Amino acid sequence: MLGNTYDNEVCSAARALEIAGERWSLLILRNAAFAGMTRFTDFQQSLNIAPNILTKRLESFVNDGLMTTSKGDSEHMEYHLTPKGLDFKAVIIALTEWGDKWSAPDGPPILYEHEGCGGHIEQRLSCKTCKRTVNARNVVARKTKAMTIGKERIAKKSG
Amino acid sequence: MLGNTYDNEVCSAARALEIAGERWSLLILRNAAFAGMTRFTDFQQSLNIAPNILTKRLESFVNDGLMTTSKGDSEHMEYHLTPKGLDFKAVIIALTEWGDKWSAPDGPPILYEHEGCGGHIEQRLSCKTCKRTVNARNVVARKTKAMTIGKERIAKKSG
Repeated sequence: MLGNTYDNEVCSAARALEIAGERWSLLILRNAAFAGMTRFTDFQQSLNIAPNILTKRLESFVNDGLMTTSKGDSEHMEYHLTPKGLDFKAVIIALTEWGDKWSAPDGPPILYEHEGCGGHIEQRLSCKTCKRTVNARNVVARKTKAMTIGKERIAKKSG
Repeated sequence: MLGNTYDNEVCSAARALEIAGERWSLLILRNAAFAGMTRFTDFQQSLNIAPNILTKRLESFVNDGLMTTSKGDSEHMEYHLTPKGLDFKAVIIALTEWGDKWSAPDGPPILYEHEGCGGHIEQRLSCKTCKRTVNARNVVARKTKAMTIGKERIAKKSG
């Protein structure tokens, strides 16, 4: 078996990137999650992506449990996001908010809305203790015991 | 000039991925943002990344305005995140939350905390209208006029 891209990283962000960090991956997930696409030809045409790349990506999504397949009404294969795949919505929204702020000269091309209510959606960082909304500048990272365990496991494997 | 990766996409998430979607990019930004790293050798050793790749990534971060450089006390070049670079913290936290949920067998190796307060940080989707915290399943995307403008611009360029 080939190693993962970020084998030596004990990091949940690295794990997520191993699953969805390849070129086109997050845009395919975006089209499935927010445009409701399910078919190979729809992904292919909307993204103008090379079919062999799209095949690889969809296969890996199925293998990694982000999508399941079924035969649709018209006997076309359909790809459906699982809860594990749908959980990338938050990542896509975070990327969108960055792009809306720093790289959207005409304004945001997409608005995220609260289904039913119609209100605009904002992503926030919230403190579980003081209940305040926290600026990302005031967020710090602390290593846990799981970091130590993970590092030891890597050391054993490579030693 | 070479085209961007996602030239035909009118999408803020795609813009963000063009800036930070290459292999290693988000992990370099993570180490700068959350581990306070500033030096080439620190990034290189912590990530065990090929020096030529790291050079490319840091150069592109400087060109894209995510980092600035300065000579530190010891005459070493130092890389510092700008506000544009720091804004990727939310993306890194979103990726981490996905990985903590779906790919952290020993538990989260890192906890994000509210500086000073020490409370745990959670990323939430909040509705600006009804003020509720919204499950990502209940978030829908709506195209805006900026989407139309962007699509027309692409059509003109390629036509």
